[in-house]
Amino acid sequence: MRLTALLLLASAPALAQPRPPRTPGDTLKSPVVGENGVVTFQLYAPKATEVSLRTEGPAPFANQKLVRNEQGVWSATDTVPADLYIYWYDVDGVPVADPRNNATRLNLSTVRSLLEVPGAASDFFAERDVPHGQVATVWYRSTVLGMPRRMQIYTPPGYATSGARYPVFYLLHGAGDDDRSWLMAGRANFILDNLIAAGKAKPMIVVMPNGSVSRAPGTRDPYPESFAQEIVPYVERNFRVLPGRDARAIAGLSMGGGHTLAIALPNLDRYAYVGVFSSGFLGPGGADSVAKAYQGAMSDPRINRLKLLWLATGKEDFILPTTKATLAAFDRNHVRYTYKESEGGHTWPNWRAYLYEFAPQLFR
Amino acid sequence: MRLTALLLLASAPALAQPRPPRTPGDTLKSPVVGENGVVTFQLYAPKATEVSLRTEGPAPFANQKLVRNEQGVWSATDTVPADLYIYWYDVDGVPVADPRNNATRLNLSTVRSLLEVPGAASDFFAERDVPHGQVATVWYRSTVLGMPRRMQIYTPPGYATSGARYPVFYLLHGAGDDDRSWLMAGRANFILDNLIAAGKAKPMIVVMPNGSVSRAPGTRDPYPESFAQEIVPYVERNFRVLPGRDARAIAGLSMGGGHTLAIALPNLDRYAYVGVFSSGFLGPGGADSVAKAYQGAMSDPRINRLKLLWLATGKEDFILPTTKATLAAFDRNHVRYTYKESEGGHTWPNWRAYLYEFAPQLFR
Repeated sequence: MRLTALLLLASAPALAQPRPPRTPGDTLKSPVVGENGVVTFQLYAPKATEVSLRTEGPAPFANQKLVRNEQGVWSATDTVPADLYIYWYDVDGVPVADPRNNATRLNLSTVRSLLEVPGAASDFFAERDVPHGQVATVWYRSTVLGMPRRMQIYTPPGYATSGARYPVFYLLHGAGDDDRSWLMAGRANFILDNLIAAGKAKPMIVVMPNGSVSRAPGTRDPYPESFAQEIVPYVERNFRVLPGRDARAIAGLSMGGGHTLAIALPNLDRYAYVGVFSSGFLGPGGADSVAKAYQGAMSDPRINRLKLLWLATGKEDFILPTTKATLAAFDRNHVRYTYKESEGGHTWPNWRAYLYEFAPQLFR
Repeated sequence: MRLTALLLLASAPALAQPRPPRTPGDTLKSPVVGENGVVTFQLYAPKATEVSLRTEGPAPFANQKLVRNEQGVWSATDTVPADLYIYWYDVDGVPVADPRNNATRLNLSTVRSLLEVPGAASDFFAERDVPHGQVATVWYRSTVLGMPRRMQIYTPPGYATSGARYPVFYLLHGAGDDDRSWLMAGRANFILDNLIAAGKAKPMIVVMPNGSVSRAPGTRDPYPESFAQEIVPYVERNFRVLPGRDARAIAGLSMGGGHTLAIALPNLDRYAYVGVFSSGFLGPGGADSVAKAYQGAMSDPRINRLKLLWLATGKEDFILPTTKATLAAFDRNHVRYTYKESEGGHTWPNWRAYLYEFAPQLFR
C-alpha cells in the first residue's frame, strides 16, 4: 500500500522555502503496533546522547532507554498489554512528543503522545463498529470568567434524527486539563458508544466543560458560578435535554470531583446522580476543613434522596486520605453513598474504568 | 494570577511513579506573545548543541537559531507580523513540537505547534466576541474504504435552535492532512463565524471530511465514490440541509482541489458553486492528460450554468503551472470561470484568505 499519487504530487514540493535535506525522520513510523502487543518506538535523533521513554502512569516501557543505530534512529521494542498509554521521549533532557505520531494528548501546558494497544482490556474504550454519537465543540463567551470559553458535548447515536429529549451528564476533568481531556485521554465518547450499543447505558448527552480557571490568590473559585449561570443554560438552550433532577447527573475526576461536590451538594434539587472519581473535599485546610462548608448540605435530608452518590479511588492514589476523610464526613452526617476502592493510582486507566462503571447506573 | 489552589493540590503529586527532578522545563512559557508582536520562543534543552526554529511557509523567525542561557534554556525573540504560524524546533536534528505549547497542528504523520499573533491581519480568523457556530466531530463506518472514518461538520450560530434548513458547503483538505486541518490550520469555523456575524456570508453548514486514502499502486482513488455514497448521505440524513444544487457548494485546496473537480464536474446537476484553491487537474501525466477524463463534463452545456467556478493560486506556488494548464483546458472548452492569482505560495495564509473570499460568494 502507498499513499495516492495525488498525495505524493501535492506534498513533495509543498513548501516554497528551501527544504532541509531528507532524513530517515521524514518517513519513520512510530509507534509501530505489531502482533501480540509488540510495540516498537522509533525516533530519528542523530546527535542525541541519550533517549528514554517517559509515561504518565505505569507502563511496561516506562523509562526504558532507546538504542541508536548507524543512521541515527533510536528504537525500543517491548510487549505491551492492551490499554491506552500516554508517553513521550526524553531526548537529552528535552521532553518530546513523538514527532511521527499524530495521536496526541494535550493539557493546559504541554503535548504528549498516545499509544493504543488493542485487545480485550482496551475493547471497552476502542472505536468499534457500533453506532457512534457525535461530539460538538462549542464556543461561548463567559461573562463570569471574563473570557472566551469552549466545551465538548457528546450526543448519543440517533440524537440528530430522533427529535427526542435526553438526560444530561456533566463530566468534569482534573487539574491541568481542559475540555478535550475526557475525549483524548478518557475516550468518553467511545465508552458511551460501546455502553449504549450493548444496552448497558441509557442514551444520554454528556457535557465536558473546561474547569480550569486562573485567579488571584485568596479569591473564590468562580467556576461553580460559571457552571450554574453559563454552562447549564447554554446546554439547556442548545440541546434537547430532559428537565428535572432525575435527568441530570454530574461527576468529575480529581479537581473535577471537588468541583462536582461544590456544584451538586448546594443544589440537591438539581442533581440526582453524583460521581466523585479520585477526589473528595478538596481545598486549603484539607478535607475535614472543607467539609464544614458543606455541613448544611450534608445535614439536609434531601441528600439521601440522591439516586446515586458514588465515589471511587485507587489504593495507590496519593489522594486516598482525602477520599477517606470525605467518606468519614459523610458517615458522621449519615449520608448514604457507594464507595469503590480500585487497584492503581491517580491515572487515566482508573478514570476510564470508573466512567465505564458509573455511566450504566445513571437515569435508571 | 496563579492557578487555583485546587489545581496545585491535585496536580503536584499526580503520578504514583517516582517523579524526575524538577527542571525549568516544567514551568517555562512558550511562545510568549508580548506587545506589538514581540514573540519569545523558549525551550529547555540542557544538553543540546544547536536549536533552531522551523516553520511551514514563510515566517520572520524561520530558521532562526536559539541562544542558550546558563540554566539550559534556549530562547529567541523576534517581532512577528499578525498571522497564524506553524512552527517547530530542530533540536540537534530532531523535529520537536514546542513541549510548552498546547496549540497544535496535526497532520497524517506528525505534530507541529501553532503561534497566533493577534492584529488587524489575523482578525478575520480570530476567535472574536461574535456568535459562534458549533463543530461536530462525527464517526462512521466507510464501507467503500473498508475502515472507520471521521469528519468535522460546522453548523452556523442559531442552527441548534432555529429548526431551519441550511445550504451546505463541502470543504476539502490537502495531501497529508485530515478532517481536522481546516480547523486547526485553516480556522474555518472562526472565518465563517466572523463572516456571518458581519452579514458577509449566508449562514451555512460546512462539512470537512477526511480525504486521505491509502491504496495500492495503479488502483483508482475510491474517495469520490465514498464521498457520493457515504459522506453526502450521512450529512443529509443527520443535518438539516436544503435540497438541490443551488444549496450545495464544494471547494478544496491542493489535493482537495483535485478531489473537488473529480466530484463536481461529473455531477453538474448536484453542485452550483465550485472552488479550487492552489490546485487544478491533478494526477499522473499532468493537467492536460487528466483534463481529457473530464472532456465530457467540460463539453456539457450545464457547466456554464454553475453559479461560480472560482480558482485561486499563489504566484510563488509550485503548482501554478498545473493551475494554468487547467485554465487553458477550460478556455479551450469555453468554460467560464473566475481566477485569482494571489501573492505567496502553497501555504495556509493563502488558503485562509481564499476561504474568506470564497464563502461570501456562496448561495446568493
